[in-house]
Amino acid sequence: MKALVYHGPGKKAWEEKPKPVITEPTDAVVKILKTTICGTDLHIMKGDVPAVTDGRIIGHEGVGIIDEAGTAVSNFKKGDHVLISCITSCGKCEYCKKAMYSHCEKGGWILGNLIDGTQAEYVRIPYADNSLYPIPAGADEEALVMLSDILPTGFECGVLNGQVKPGDTIAIVGAGPIGLATLLTAQFFSPAEIIMIDQDDNRLQVAKTFGATQLINSNNEDAVEKIMALTKNKGVDVAIEAVGVPATFELCQQIIGAGGHIANIGVHGKSVTLHLENLWSKNITITTRLVDTVSTPMLFKNVQSGKLDPNKLITHHFKLDQILKAYDTFGNAANEKALKVILTA
Amino acid sequence: MKALVYHGPGKKAWEEKPKPVITEPTDAVVKILKTTICGTDLHIMKGDVPAVTDGRIIGHEGVGIIDEAGTAVSNFKKGDHVLISCITSCGKCEYCKKAMYSHCEKGGWILGNLIDGTQAEYVRIPYADNSLYPIPAGADEEALVMLSDILPTGFECGVLNGQVKPGDTIAIVGAGPIGLATLLTAQFFSPAEIIMIDQDDNRLQVAKTFGATQLINSNNEDAVEKIMALTKNKGVDVAIEAVGVPATFELCQQIIGAGGHIANIGVHGKSVTLHLENLWSKNITITTRLVDTVSTPMLFKNVQSGKLDPNKLITHHFKLDQILKAYDTFGNAANEKALKVILTA
Amino acid sequence: MKALVYHGPGKKAWEEKPKPVITEPTDAVVKILKTTICGTDLHIMKGDVPAVTDGRIIGHEGVGIIDEAGTAVSNFKKGDHVLISCITSCGKCEYCKKAMYSHCEKGGWILGNLIDGTQAEYVRIPYADNSLYPIPAGADEEALVMLSDILPTGFECGVLNGQVKPGDTIAIVGAGPIGLATLLTAQFFSPAEIIMIDQDDNRLQVAKTFGATQLINSNNEDAVEKIMALTKNKGVDVAIEAVGVPATFELCQQIIGAGGHIANIGVHGKSVTLHLENLWSKNITITTRLVDTVSTPMLFKNVQSGKLDPNKLITHHFKLDQILKAYDTFGNAANEKALKVILTA
Amino acid sequence: MKALVYHGPGKKAWEEKPKPVITEPTDAVVKILKTTICGTDLHIMKGDVPAVTDGRIIGHEGVGIIDEAGTAVSNFKKGDHVLISCITSCGKCEYCKKAMYSHCEKGGWILGNLIDGTQAEYVRIPYADNSLYPIPAGADEEALVMLSDILPTGFECGVLNGQVKPGDTIAIVGAGPIGLATLLTAQFFSPAEIIMIDQDDNRLQVAKTFGATQLINSNNEDAVEKIMALTKNKGVDVAIEAVGVPATFELCQQIIGAGGHIANIGVHGKSVTLHLENLWSKNITITTRLVDTVSTPMLFKNVQSGKLDPNKLITHHFKLDQILKAYDTFGNAANEKALKVILTA
Repeated sequence: MKALVYHGPGKKAWEEKPKPVITEPTDAVVKILKTTICGTDLHIMKGDVPAVTDGRIIGHEGVGIIDEAGTAVSNFKKGDHVLISCITSCGKCEYCKKAMYSHCEKGGWILGNLIDGTQAEYVRIPYADNSLYPIPAGADEEALVMLSDILPTGFECGVLNGQVKPGDTIAIVGAGPIGLATLLTAQFFSPAEIIMIDQDDNRLQVAKTFGATQLINSNNEDAVEKIMALTKNKGVDVAIEAVGVPATFELCQQIIGAGGHIANIGVHGKSVTLHLENLWSKNITITTRLVDTVSTPMLFKNVQSGKLDPNKLITHHFKLDQILKAYDTFGNAANEKALKVILTA
Repeated sequence: MKALVYHGPGKKAWEEKPKPVITEPTDAVVKILKTTICGTDLHIMKGDVPAVTDGRIIGHEGVGIIDEAGTAVSNFKKGDHVLISCITSCGKCEYCKKAMYSHCEKGGWILGNLIDGTQAEYVRIPYADNSLYPIPAGADEEALVMLSDILPTGFECGVLNGQVKPGDTIAIVGAGPIGLATLLTAQFFSPAEIIMIDQDDNRLQVAKTFGATQLINSNNEDAVEKIMALTKNKGVDVAIEAVGVPATFELCQQIIGAGGHIANIGVHGKSVTLHLENLWSKNITITTRLVDTVSTPMLFKNVQSGKLDPNKLITHHFKLDQILKAYDTFGNAANEKALKVILTA
Repeated sequence: MKALVYHGPGKKAWEEKPKPVITEPTDAVVKILKTTICGTDLHIMKGDVPAVTDGRIIGHEGVGIIDEAGTAVSNFKKGDHVLISCITSCGKCEYCKKAMYSHCEKGGWILGNLIDGTQAEYVRIPYADNSLYPIPAGADEEALVMLSDILPTGFECGVLNGQVKPGDTIAIVGAGPIGLATLLTAQFFSPAEIIMIDQDDNRLQVAKTFGATQLINSNNEDAVEKIMALTKNKGVDVAIEAVGVPATFELCQQIIGAGGHIANIGVHGKSVTLHLENLWSKNITITTRLVDTVSTPMLFKNVQSGKLDPNKLITHHFKLDQILKAYDTFGNAANEKALKVILTA
Repeated sequence: MKALVYHGPGKKAWEEKPKPVITEPTDAVVKILKTTICGTDLHIMKGDVPAVTDGRIIGHEGVGIIDEAGTAVSNFKKGDHVLISCITSCGKCEYCKKAMYSHCEKGGWILGNLIDGTQAEYVRIPYADNSLYPIPAGADEEALVMLSDILPTGFECGVLNGQVKPGDTIAIVGAGPIGLATLLTAQFFSPAEIIMIDQDDNRLQVAKTFGATQLINSNNEDAVEKIMALTKNKGVDVAIEAVGVPATFELCQQIIGAGGHIANIGVHGKSVTLHLENLWSKNITITTRLVDTVSTPMLFKNVQSGKLDPNKLITHHFKLDQILKAYDTFGNAANEKALKVILTA
């Protein structure tokens, strides 16, 4: 089969690889129908994720069809359409029993990282019963690709951890795909005000159409000053960090109100300064999280009922074998006005 | 001043009464601008609420202007526009400290019940700092009358107690004003499906425009059977009782799924049968609640931000001195297609 | 092998049965080391549980040694000592993913009910990875038998559902084994007062040694009156029903304070009267639950650390082949002063 | 009257000051019976708290007798014995209604800080109804002094914010009075293991008698290494910082397990480094809090019922007019083996 293979920093190829086979009775092999590229994949390609080694097939998102199911797989059979979770869950370790699948002792984020991933014609999924979700006939499969990673990540790491609630004033720092996914799902809890902060006017305008009530381009205006004016100097109830650099985490600390929540989504490469000299008495909560994908069934229901439209996040389409071109587009997102791309087999 | 006075079962009059005065330093006297009639007021008029005695001024909802504030009132001064809460809270008893204002040792539901109420030109409000809310200039005061009682009641007793969450399938039994207030506020938590059950097609159609996704007229079809079909025999996640009779509570027990919540809002005059022989192993939760009005500030924010439009509940308008006519209309709600009426001074 | 077999109401025998074998790759066969008898087993023997049919091996508690493990079992291997949960969990259905194992689509309470159970020399355990717990060398295995059912049941259905918290005044209605298990585990949350109500002075004295702070023999004194005196007419914060008859559920309704929780543990054969005419405005919560055994790992830790001593519940010991005599003792618990019996293979 | 007065860094005097008088109808003047010294008072004396200015009477803890009550005070009258909360609450601002009294718009921590405090013969308490607690006849008033600040602080900032639960392994970094208060109240939730870390063997031995299950003197052994060994390399469920310097917060980050909680109690004078490069994916929660004293009524109940013995924290006694000597002892705590001192009028 063909697959996108990592060959060290800056080197990737769409090349022939052996079709995966069942190695454990709990495995399934899935034929990919649609997949996408994640910001994390760009980091991998730069060599920022040392666990990913030469020869690895990249990708941890997608929908497909069961090509073969192991003998212990009971939820799925050949021909079933499935949504692939970016997180693999064994369903029986201490962490899985606590619904913290991200830290599954045998799974977690392994696809396109420690084992071969989904940017390929076929992929082997361990613990298929717990790591795949059935797609009913007639569902919008392209939209569902957004449920592999980006929407549960925005919702769990940002919205749930931030404890967004009706009437809140929230700020989302970063209007990239993950910040926008957070914006869409934050509205499940009806905050009164959603302040979106970014340096790219195009993305801010997208945020406005997605439901943001205030836009701040931090290149053009003082974000802290504006937020303090908007909140009568109280600060926000929830600040969600959706970038992953010290400056944006710093901003969250400056705008958070007493009793507020700072929810970190960003993948940080460096430590940050925590201003306990100011915050020790402010009754705040700071959270971190690798997505557990526990919210996938709920998100699925709200897509089916029309409460959530993941298609809003999709800006570009390619054939799967055009994946190198898709990487170029996604890697140049600002100029291309790209959010998420869809690759169709 | 003029006021609506109860004179025993079936007898009421719009008559002259002394203007109320400050009796405690924590009191305020409020000039009524707008008030409304509650279903509970109809019960009082029938003699169903024995605590209400001959001579009592009825009414526990409204907006007005501070006419005089006691010496210990610090949040308000003469001329301030205020929203009156149906629940009076002293702010310093054991229950108030637990935010269970409904059971305040010196307050609770006393307006238009144990002390004179709001269907009058003036009303004395005890513990004004904790029982009134400031209305900023430019707010839609008519809409805010719906925040005195009906919206917090639907939200707290139905939605919060029912623990409605994104993706849920919920059923609201009763599409009267309180059921519809529940329907509006349930959407703060983005349930996937909202099933509305009533015997009045007009109200069901109103429910549809308010966001219900399924309508059941229980006169015409078997509600249990239809709900089980809609839920693949699992039952609903949340069943909200918004009527107050044994039959509707019985229905909630029949449609609730394993792990589900039954939230009672209805004012019941009789005991009901609880089917513990079926429910003991179904992991369900049943709640009751007299509204605490703890959600009033949040509801206020969501009205101001446009997330909630209470005007949808208002069908009729009268001048305050036409209150007897307003009672006729509200008391004949089905024929008049009446939800909430507004009385303007 | 030998096993205790149900042969219709009132008929049971300790007789030869085929040794169970692995039928699914997720199964394990366990050699029983120690088991016990549950109050539910007495109900089964009377014919009160129609799902249990002639020929069924009874019992859903015990510890043992893995005799054989299916090919898809990864947590256990032959020779491992294990604790058997009364609840079987597949680990991959909708309910298991919500940690509501009691309603597992393929498991739940099936042992000694829908499939053969643990009052035997060997038992087949489906979904072994999710339905067994490893016992480390040196653990007190007899004590751990109390973790198969009675301690998680008291803790989850009574204490967790009742939301017992530090400083609370709680009442436990029924001082049988399940009420006493509730009493032991309620102390994990440090209530200020624990009122124990029963009709048997011996059991009340046992409750006192287990940590009850007030004893009420409802044959000799008016429980409602005494509790209202103890609580200055406020009623209790939590009332836990540990019997399963209408009178005890009625008592819980009479003693519950505003804002309180009634947690039902009892297995009810009849409906009860729910006094919504009084309770609709009291802000109470009523819960039911079939134990999910989600707390088993926590209970295990607290046994290992010495915070919980399950041996307190064990009053009698028998050899496994003396099980008919053990049933006689346990079936005559009041006279025998029996709580839990241990049967050792 | 006599009072302890701050006169700039390093300067204090026990001197004559005017007896306080009622200035608002919600005030009370309290005659001090017993008070104590807080670690914060030592910081004030060094000049570390710039808000405290020359002439201020210090102290925010104590019990006393109502000497005079304002006209709007309804919970107390002259002669009542009362516990003084370190936090003043108006009971009617946005924060008080959220039970976040620490941030009360008119109160918060003002005693012995922005207004005169309790290390005096008399003190004026604003908003007396919400800032004092009644002491019943016969209560151990000396023990109750520990409920003014140290026990609610340990419990709320450490135990509640850390979400300590049954079966947890928790670490408390710092075995000073506040760490020990945390240790006492953590046991309300029955953690399986409590690891106490300090550099003072005497304090660690005290911790052992208070219920710690593991002691680590970080001067003598590698705390991280030992904790990882104790937890099978998983880290702790809860790490509580009870010192207030960067090194101890660093330690908390090194020992926290995936999904764990770091609860900061310490008053920090400097920023710290937050290792998001490691923690971003560990699903952790970090909290800060100025005590709200919302738990005071609960702590009171558990003292009355014997579940909590605050006397364990009291090591030294002085007459109130020996307060300078008491400061010497408390300021030299390690050598004096001092925890809390009691000053009796």
